[in-house]
Order: sequence, then C-alpha cells, then structure tokens
Amino acid sequence: MTHIKKPASASIPHGIVSISDYEKSARDYMRHDIAEYVYSGSGDEQTLYRNRYGFQNYQIYNRVLADFSESNTSVQLFGKTLAHPFILAPVAHQGLVHPDGERATAMAANAMQTPMIISSLSNIPVEEITAQKGNYWFQLYWQGNRVATLSLLKRALEAGVEVIVITLDAAVSGVRNRPQRAGFFLPEALCEANLSDLPPPAPRTLEPDQSPALHGFMQDTPGVEDLLWLREQTNLPLLAKGVTHPADAVRLMNIGFDGIIVSNHGGRTLDGMPAAIDCIAPIRKAVGAEYPILFDSGIRRGTDALTALALGANAVCIGRPQMWGLAVAGAAGVAHCIRIFQEELEIAMALSGCPSITDITSEIFWASN
Amino acid sequence: MTHIKKPASASIPHGIVSISDYEKSARDYMRHDIAEYVYSGSGDEQTLYRNRYGFQNYQIYNRVLADFSESNTSVQLFGKTLAHPFILAPVAHQGLVHPDGERATAMAANAMQTPMIISSLSNIPVEEITAQKGNYWFQLYWQGNRVATLSLLKRALEAGVEVIVITLDAAVSGVRNRPQRAGFFLPEALCEANLSDLPPPAPRTLEPDQSPALHGFMQDTPGVEDLLWLREQTNLPLLAKGVTHPADAVRLMNIGFDGIIVSNHGGRTLDGMPAAIDCIAPIRKAVGAEYPILFDSGIRRGTDALTALALGANAVCIGRPQMWGLAVAGAAGVAHCIRIFQEELEIAMALSGCPSITDITSEIFWASN
Amino acid sequence: MTHIKKPASASIPHGIVSISDYEKSARDYMRHDIAEYVYSGSGDEQTLYRNRYGFQNYQIYNRVLADFSESNTSVQLFGKTLAHPFILAPVAHQGLVHPDGERATAMAANAMQTPMIISSLSNIPVEEITAQKGNYWFQLYWQGNRVATLSLLKRALEAGVEVIVITLDAAVSGVRNRPQRAGFFLPEALCEANLSDLPPPAPRTLEPDQSPALHGFMQDTPGVEDLLWLREQTNLPLLAKGVTHPADAVRLMNIGFDGIIVSNHGGRTLDGMPAAIDCIAPIRKAVGAEYPILFDSGIRRGTDALTALALGANAVCIGRPQMWGLAVAGAAGVAHCIRIFQEELEIAMALSGCPSITDITSEIFWASN
Amino acid sequence: MTHIKKPASASIPHGIVSISDYEKSARDYMRHDIAEYVYSGSGDEQTLYRNRYGFQNYQIYNRVLADFSESNTSVQLFGKTLAHPFILAPVAHQGLVHPDGERATAMAANAMQTPMIISSLSNIPVEEITAQKGNYWFQLYWQGNRVATLSLLKRALEAGVEVIVITLDAAVSGVRNRPQRAGFFLPEALCEANLSDLPPPAPRTLEPDQSPALHGFMQDTPGVEDLLWLREQTNLPLLAKGVTHPADAVRLMNIGFDGIIVSNHGGRTLDGMPAAIDCIAPIRKAVGAEYPILFDSGIRRGTDALTALALGANAVCIGRPQMWGLAVAGAAGVAHCIRIFQEELEIAMALSGCPSITDITSEIFWASN
Repeated sequence: MTHIKKPASASIPHGIVSISDYEKSARDYMRHDIAEYVYSGSGDEQTLYRNRYGFQNYQIYNRVLADFSESNTSVQLFGKTLAHPFILAPVAHQGLVHPDGERATAMAANAMQTPMIISSLSNIPVEEITAQKGNYWFQLYWQGNRVATLSLLKRALEAGVEVIVITLDAAVSGVRNRPQRAGFFLPEALCEANLSDLPPPAPRTLEPDQSPALHGFMQDTPGVEDLLWLREQTNLPLLAKGVTHPADAVRLMNIGFDGIIVSNHGGRTLDGMPAAIDCIAPIRKAVGAEYPILFDSGIRRGTDALTALALGANAVCIGRPQMWGLAVAGAAGVAHCIRIFQEELEIAMALSGCPSITDITSEIFWASN
Repeated sequence: MTHIKKPASASIPHGIVSISDYEKSARDYMRHDIAEYVYSGSGDEQTLYRNRYGFQNYQIYNRVLADFSESNTSVQLFGKTLAHPFILAPVAHQGLVHPDGERATAMAANAMQTPMIISSLSNIPVEEITAQKGNYWFQLYWQGNRVATLSLLKRALEAGVEVIVITLDAAVSGVRNRPQRAGFFLPEALCEANLSDLPPPAPRTLEPDQSPALHGFMQDTPGVEDLLWLREQTNLPLLAKGVTHPADAVRLMNIGFDGIIVSNHGGRTLDGMPAAIDCIAPIRKAVGAEYPILFDSGIRRGTDALTALALGANAVCIGRPQMWGLAVAGAAGVAHCIRIFQEELEIAMALSGCPSITDITSEIFWASN
Repeated sequence: MTHIKKPASASIPHGIVSISDYEKSARDYMRHDIAEYVYSGSGDEQTLYRNRYGFQNYQIYNRVLADFSESNTSVQLFGKTLAHPFILAPVAHQGLVHPDGERATAMAANAMQTPMIISSLSNIPVEEITAQKGNYWFQLYWQGNRVATLSLLKRALEAGVEVIVITLDAAVSGVRNRPQRAGFFLPEALCEANLSDLPPPAPRTLEPDQSPALHGFMQDTPGVEDLLWLREQTNLPLLAKGVTHPADAVRLMNIGFDGIIVSNHGGRTLDGMPAAIDCIAPIRKAVGAEYPILFDSGIRRGTDALTALALGANAVCIGRPQMWGLAVAGAAGVAHCIRIFQEELEIAMALSGCPSITDITSEIFWASN
Repeated sequence: MTHIKKPASASIPHGIVSISDYEKSARDYMRHDIAEYVYSGSGDEQTLYRNRYGFQNYQIYNRVLADFSESNTSVQLFGKTLAHPFILAPVAHQGLVHPDGERATAMAANAMQTPMIISSLSNIPVEEITAQKGNYWFQLYWQGNRVATLSLLKRALEAGVEVIVITLDAAVSGVRNRPQRAGFFLPEALCEANLSDLPPPAPRTLEPDQSPALHGFMQDTPGVEDLLWLREQTNLPLLAKGVTHPADAVRLMNIGFDGIIVSNHGGRTLDGMPAAIDCIAPIRKAVGAEYPILFDSGIRRGTDALTALALGANAVCIGRPQMWGLAVAGAAGVAHCIRIFQEELEIAMALSGCPSITDITSEIFWASN
C-alpha cells in the first residue's frame, strides 16, 4: 500500500528485545503523518508523559523468601480464565500501519491466547476478524442515536464477540497538534468497515456563535438514559472505557455496567489529566474489592503491569504497542510484543515474591516509614 | 518599516495550529533585540518559567456523564456579557512587531468580540483605536503626579473606553538582561502616542549615594491617597493590575477598586515571584466569591484558561500571544490566536464535564486521596 | 585475550582521580557487549539511576568543633578488625575485563587490607585466589539442590574462606535489554572455575504453557528449609545478600544468619526497586542496633559510604568499580579505587565531624526544622 | 604574567550586564587549570549546584502599596554603617587571575564603599592592601599552633584591619577533582605574602596506616581551648566563618565570637552539604534575633541577597564574582560586580515592597496556604 513507508519485516529484526525497541523502530515503517497520529498525545503531551513516568512513583520491593511451589499467572474475567492478565486494547485503523491490519493482530492474539477488543473503527469488518478462532470483545462508539448504535451493536453480537466495551471519554477529539502539523489524513484505501452500512447521521447545523465541540459533538454523546437503555440491549458483559473519576465509576456501576476500564485514552484526549496509573487506587477504593477494573494507558513493561495489578486492576490492556509490533513485523511483531509482556511480568512476579496474580497487592510497594 | 525583520504573512502559515507554533515562528519576523524584549523575562527567568510550567501542578479529571444539553461559554463582567472569558491584556508598543500595531490588534479583537485593554504606551493613539467598533478598556500608568495622570485618564475617557485598569506592579522595571545584552532600543519611528501631549515630568536630581530605583522611580508611584483620589475621577469600572498578595488585594478592594488582575507581569518584573497561576486561589479566598478577579501571565492553552477559571478567575487576559500573532500574520494572526484559545477552552470544557463557565470549579482537579 | 579491547594500562592513566573517572575510562578497554553487560541495569534502569542519585536525598552538615585527637577508621566485623569499612563485593566473571581476573583483584585487596568476597562465578578457581594471603569471603549461589550446593560450599571452606555469603535476590535474571541488544556472550576462554566439577543439574522440562521464570528458575531457589539446612553446614559467619524488605531481614535473622547485605544487586534484577540506600534505615530499625548489616549498590564516593554508615550499615561493599579499575589498570587500578574510597571517607569524616566510624550516625544529616 | 591567558579588558566588555555574564566570560581570561580551580566545587558538585538553585525554593511576592517615602539600603554592623549589605568575602590567591590581585580588588572595594575581607592567603601583603583607604577585615587561617597564629594575627592588627574572621570549615581540603584532573598548580610567581615570615610548621610524620586527613590536617585545627585563647588576643570583632549547624553556632556564640558567617565555602569542602541558603533560618532561630549573622555561598543576584536577608542574615558576602570581575576587567570589573549587586538589590527591594533593609523579613516569601 502506498501509505506504508516500509513493508513490515519478515522476521523480528535483530536487537528488538523490548517494547521500547518496537517504539523506536516502528517509526521507520510509517508515513510521517501516520506516525505523528499514532505516537502523539493531545496538547503539550503532559498527560502522555505522565502516563509513562507515573509508574516511577511506585517503587517495588524484591522479596527473597516467598514460596513458588505453586506458580500461576492466570486470571478469571467475566467467567473465563485468561492465561495472563493482558488484553489487546481497541485501536482504530490498524490498516494505517500494515496492509493486513486487524486481521494480523487477531492472528497474534489468537496465537498468544490473548483477548482482542475490536475497535468500532477497524478497517477489517468485525465478522472477518472473528472468523478466526479467538477471544474477541467489541468496542462500541455511540453512533449519535440509539437506532444506529443498536445496529452496530447487533452486528458485533452476530459476529460472536463475548464482551462489549463502550468508550465514553472521546466524545470530542483532543487537541491533536502533532498530526495537524503533519497534515495527517486517512488514506482513501482504508474504510471504517463496521460503519459503512449505518444510516447517515442526521445533519446538524451550528449557528455562527455556537461551538463545534459543545454544541456539536457533545450533543451526540450518550446520556445516562441512553446508557440504561444500552444495558438492556445485551446480556453480554458490558464495560465502560475511559473512566478516571471515582464518582463516574460508581455511577456506571449503578447503571449496571459489569466493569470499567480506567484509561485516559493514552493521553490523546484531555491534556492535563493525571497519569492513568494514579487513577486506579481511588477508583478501586470507591467501587469495592470485587468490581472488575481493567487498566489501559502507558503499559510498556512487565513491571508496569505488576504495578497496575497491585493498585487494583484485574487485567491490563495494551494499546500503541500493537501498532508498533504490526508496523515492524506484522502478526509476528504483535505476538512478540505480547510475549515480551508475559515474560517480563513473570520475571517481575518472581523477583517481587508473587507466585500468583492474587498475590500482587499494594504490599509489594516500598514505603520508607 | 526598517525595524521589521520580515513582513507579516498574508495568511496563516501552514502548520500553525497552536499558540506555541506562533511563539516559535514569530521570532523569524522580529529584529533580534526586539524579539529579546518581547520574549524575555527578568533576571534568570525563573518566574517566566514558573508561569508556564506552574499549570502542570493542576491535574484535571475527564468526566464522562455530564449533561451538555445546555452549553455556554459566556461570562458576565462589569455589566456586560462576553461570549468567551478571554480579554486582550495591555501590551505596550505593538508597533515593534507590525506596522499597523494596535490598529491591527483592535481589528482582530473586534472580529472575535473580545475586549482589548489599550496600553498607555500604545504606538497608535487611543482615539484612533477606539474609532473602530469594539469593547475597549484602557490601561493607565501613573504619570508621576495627579495632573498628568488625570490628563491621560480624561483622554481615554473621551475616547470612549469602558473600563480603566491601572498597572501597579511595574513602578520599577525588572532586571531585563536579555534585551540589555541585545542592545534593545525603541525605533525612532515609534512614539508613545498617548503621552506626547502630557506636561513634561518635573526634573528629579539624585544624590550620588541615592538609588535610581528607590529614590527615583519609587517616588513616582501612586500612594494609597493617590489611588483614593483616582477612584473619584471616574465612574467607570476601575481595576488594579499586577496583584499577587492577598493583603494587597483586600486593600485595593477596600479602596474601592471594582476588581483586580492577578498577574506577575508575564515574569518581566521581580524574578523570584511564584507562578502567577498559584496566586489566584489565596486571593479568591481573601476577597470572597463575588469580587471580580481577572488573571494574566502564562496562558497558552485552553486548559490553562480552564485551570485559572477553576481556581477563581472570572476571565483571563492574553498578553505575548498578541505580539506573536501580530508579527506572524497581523490582524489575522491575532484573531487566529483568539480563536485557538476559544476552541481549546471549548474542548477542555467538553472533556472535563463543564457545560458552562460557572461549572468550572476546583472540583475539576484531580486529588489522589 | 581476544575479548579484551585494549590491554590494561601499566600505570594509572593521567587524570584518573575519582571512581567516576574509572567509570568513564573503563569503557575504552572493554569489548562493546561486555561493557554493556558490566555497566547496564535491568529494564529501563530506573533502579540503576536511583541507586546513584538516591544519595542526594541525604544532605550532610559540616561540623567545625569536633575533637579529632583520637581518630580511627576501623570497624569490628565477625570477630576481626578491618582498617576501613570497605569490602569488595562478589563480582562474577572478572576475566571479562582483564586476563588475570580475580587473581589481580585479590592482589589489590591484599595490598589494601580489604576483604574480598569471591564469587561462585569467578573465572579463577577459589583455591588459586585464596593461595594469596588475604581476607577472603565466599559468595554462594544455590546450586538447585543441597548436594551440589554442599559440594561447592565445602570446596570454598577447604580453600580457607572466612565468611559465607549466599545471594538470594537473583534467582531469576532481571530483564537485561542492553546486553541482549549488544549480543553479549561469555567468551569460550572463560570458565566458571568453581562449578566445573559439580554434578550436572537434573534436567527440567517445561510444558508449553509454563513460565521459564516461575516454573523453571524459581523452582531452583532455596526455600526456608534449605536455608535452615545450610545454616547447619558451617560454623563460619553466614550472610544473606540481596535483602531490601525489613520482614525478609527479620526472617533471615531468625533463621540464624549472622548478618545481611542490603543490596538491590546494583540495579541488575528487578527494575522498579527503590534506591538501595533508602532501604538501610527501615531494616536497621527492624533488626535492632546490634545485628550486622552490610550495604552494597551505588557507592561511588566517600560521602556515599559515610551516608550508608550513618543510616545503619556496619560496612559497605564495592562492586562495579572493581571491574572498572581492573579494566583500566589491573591490580593497581583496583587498589587505586580502594585507596580513593578510603581517602574520600577520611576527608568526609574530617569535615562532618566524625573522628571514628561509631561517630557516624544519623545526626550528621541536615534537617530543616 | 605567563599564567594569565588573556589580559583583563581596559573597560567593561559589551554585553556584560549581570554576574552570570562575568561568570561566562571570565573563563576566557584564565589558564585552564586555574579556571578549574576557581569555578569548581568538591566531589560531584552537588553542593555547588544546590548553593545556586537552592534560592529557587524561596519565592517572593511583589507588593504594590508599600510606602517608599523613606528608602534606605544601609545596615549597622559592628558599630559601623555600611551603605549596602554587601561585603567582599575572603578569596585566596587573587593573583591567579590578575597581576594586581588583591590590590585591584581593594581599589574596587574602596570605590564602592564595600568592606573587603583580606585572605590569609592573599598574594599581596596585608599592609600593602590596607595602605589604600578602605574598610578592611582579615580572614585568619589557624597556623597549626598558637605562636604562628598569633604572629599572623598581630601582623593583620598592625596593618589596621577592623574585624577578624577565622575560617573553621576548611581544616581539610575537599575532594577537588576538577583542578586535580586539570593539573592545577600555583604559579611560582605567586607567594602567600602574609605567611612568608612565619616560623616553619613542626614536622609531622604519619605512620603508613595513618590518614593524612584525620591524623595529619585535623591535628592542626584549633580546638575549643584554642578558640577561647584566640578570643582573648584581640578586642576587635571576631567572627567564625564556615558554620552551618545551629549547635556549632551556639557554641561559638558562647565562646565569645561576635558573629558567624553561615557558609559552605562555596561548595568547595564537603560535597553533600545542603544549599547554604537553607542553613540561615535554623541558625537564626538558634542564636536569637540580635546576634550578627553574615551569609556567603552562591549569591549571584540582588534577589539572592534579598532572600538571605529575609531569612535572617545581616549582610551577605560575595566570593567568586570577585575573581570573575578581576579577570575580565580588573578593579573596574570588581567594582561593576558590586554595583550590579547593589542595583539589583535596590530593584528587588522596590518590587517586593521593602523600603529599608529591616523591612526585609520572611513576610516577603510566598506561601500557598
């Protein structure tokens, strides 16, 4: 494809041994404006920075006397057992970085027995993705009204997805200066494959003194009544993604959501948000010990995942590394990224004295007093 | 004009999508010593730095369940309704960066329905500026005595300004090493158009052991009695600019000022001052919930404005970006800067769950405990 | 040897006056992949960085009225008197950087009257090292089972070592990306001289879904029962190395260990651990005033040693500087490093008002209130 | 002189408007090893860095309503009135950077009516310096015993100095790696002019296992009895320099010292000491409101002096800037440095609302709550 700068390598290139190696290398494979779109955060990228460096506030003890005779990395989630607590976050438009797009990602997810959350904005139709064996979830963007949203939901349900995730934190796009400066555009060859048969949105005309954000996009977001309605449209586990305030988490729990994904959208929406990792503990405190919390934003190391789990997450989602792995080496690259996360988490568990995921608690953190 | 390094562009240059783009680009249009004058802060520029980075101490939640059916960015100020809470701060000598100077800025202010505070030190006479339709305020520098000050005030009143702002924090110029090193000088072509017909100041002779700052400039500043006198010279709203200490704010309120502008003069006076943004909350606490507070110094993003409003400001003033916009693209550049601020604020309100300006309170800030 | 990039200098090169000079210079003498192995920490090297900069959190008063008529740098450790509180930490594979390897290090240790902890993974056999006069300790890695471990221990005891140190924090190797990227390999010429006659380890086969870390390496670590057994195999002082959690320290004390070495393995195991220096005080508090604590990780200055002693260590161990000294100037380089540490500690004691090691307490630290 | 790299300029070079300009420029005039000696701090220069950046922890309000009808920068010290609270700190070997050395500095001090503390280690004899009109103090280094010390003291007294300052914090030289690496040596042409006629020190032989610092230099420092004796040798004001611990300050006050100079020797002795500015307040608290405290280390701006005075210092001493001014422009350079300090302090007083030195209290500091 003409929008691919350099075709993905046929095998993992020499010297790629960590997610940061993928991050550094993947730029070489992407058209400049697409790279800016993939890598950037909003505004001055304060939140993008905090997401990554916020983990450093959590320092971890090594332990030397734990009993590892029974070791296990599996977690229970929504009635299923996952071998590792990693999930592929929904990432839109994977065709931007690889001709096989989500098809390749699904192959990797399947090979690594990792759930994949298919984006509403995938370039490959949801049915074509789920045609491969695997554990697929579906990420739903509200389509401005209930009719169109239900149509999209039903298509995903018919494709056989097992969990529904509605993203709530991107009603308005953040201030995305880096792709703006680079003149980012979606190549014509890529379509939003799941949205093509939806009824066209009702035309909305703004007065000259009205705000595109406030009087435009924000009028197309779901209200509480819409979410109560959505809850009734499926018996599948229903999650809300993009939650950072404890009060929002509690309201969503009360609306009937089966879990939430703590996330700041990888630093791509409101610049100025805290590090995503700092948002887990207050939410865990607010929703109680049993309510499922997933975490997303900035995980690049096994120790990052260990930290998120210790703060109260039940599993973690991996976003941008999918795009980096895909660009560098296609399905093999994504699979390698997942493998790196798994092995690094195993090493982190071994050294921090946690033989199983349930042993990973806030006791692992160093405290001076 | 010979002191303009490169004429302003006829349209907004490609890739200019944020205030920081204007900041970076505007240097190319300015003579070096003028750029040093415009961009620099005093001393070691600690305060200039703090002004900008102080905003990062205020982290903002995104919210996902707010009701935006009624959205509005307007504020009430001194009996008028502003469509957005932005005001053009008084900036002296705008002819330094564009031949049309304040005339072009006024055109942009008018187009964007934004109040403009005309500087005592404008290069275009106040009457010529106010001849254009618009909402004009006047910034008054004390002219050493009541006679000259009153003469200047009357000229502004006759020109039709609607609010008077006296600047109190620049009695003595700060230590301005960068323009000193660059050999900054005001081009002969530029005059202080509003001061030209004032009586010449009384000659003051210093003894060899007397200080130009303490025994010279500081003797020409208004005392409390002078401010009480000034209060009686006009019925227009009267504001004091350059206040950072709560006790000063309370005294000014008691003298009869209608509001204050919290500002550290963009880091151009006393180096060592705190970030201006840190000064709002203590002053709001001291003067009560109803007293008008404007804020000035370091606003470069919509989220900065959101932060200032949440801490207690009723509106925010924009300073240096006027000069950058003017240098790069004249009136269109200034208007574009205002538009960027407006749109970024709207996006920030949408993502932080604030459908109106009064919804922007300290509840938006993240707190870990 | 072909894996040495540049032979060690015949004398201390001009301008080498501190450990940081050795650090900077030694790279020139090492093959790239070996340098990456020696210098690197695990993961993103957060802990490597913290180890070094953590000392800056402890600020030291100078004192001007202390009585130095009786000055002394000696310490009592395990029934012996050391002239200075420095010990050479166990460092594996010293043949990587100098053809004489541990033989040269022992020569330096002997010349400087400094105890040397011989690594299980030395390239020179323990007997050959101890053939030189000196104060030798032996670092024991658990060999997967009691038979092999006992065989190695007995060999060390027969060689005449005086203290046994078992390393507990490296059951699993950390994530070592820098040597991985550099393609680090152990030159064929180097053997693990102390392990060559041990029975080969029992073969362990992992299922495809089992973790090399958790189901492989961690199964070969000693449990509490093994440590109780080990305690009975020798009457020599027995220390545990790699302890950072107070609870682990107390358990090891109760098992019968004669002391512990607080260490995070020089930042080479679990990245995310706190600065090693921050771990001393909580452990000292937990084990009481009398229990021997040694410290290791990041000591590069006499003031670092002063800080560790003030926080509760009885002596400090020096790791990487051995390799740097060895690479640059062989035995003379190592001896010079030890001399630098001794002299810098003496100067630090003089200026901080501590005429003897027991005078070095937390009273030396500055506190603002 | 051959050890001067470039002769001092005949006038202040263009663009030199701050002390930092002198700092940057002076290197060009100095032989490399001499520059390293002048500019460097001890160890890793943590304390040198802290000295400079420690001021940033003290943020200063501007004030806009203070009454400046009575403005004054003078201070009373030891029965004399100084026009400004600046004093030239003792700086050894000024001949290193200018052929006229201390003679030129004295000329500048005299021109600016600033006291000069003559170093024991001046290259120009004390009598030759005091032959110029001025306010001279003498810095005394203990000469190993009372006889030699008294001889040096008497010489200074006979030369007409007005205050005696004994330096207590440099019994042992700090770890000075930068001059060591640069091969710093004192040019033969320079003599320690005040020490040349003293009896040679008694020979001291160290055993091989004795420490040059602890058993050598520290044995030549004055004990408490020596200081009591010294106190009786003169009726002049007697100050102790190099004090940072409150307990030392109290003991020196009780011994009969008339004041202390809080200083960490410009970061040249014990690296790891706190920022000197942080040491004033605890000492002021310990010695009470009336006891004279001078401050030295890191003052480079008028606002730095303002900060030190606000924390409790009665006056501040200027060290390295003397050497920079001297190197760049001889006596005129030193005078210019003093003038910059005076004018910047005046501006800082004007903007912070302090019409006199006694108005400079901790009330000037910003506090958020």
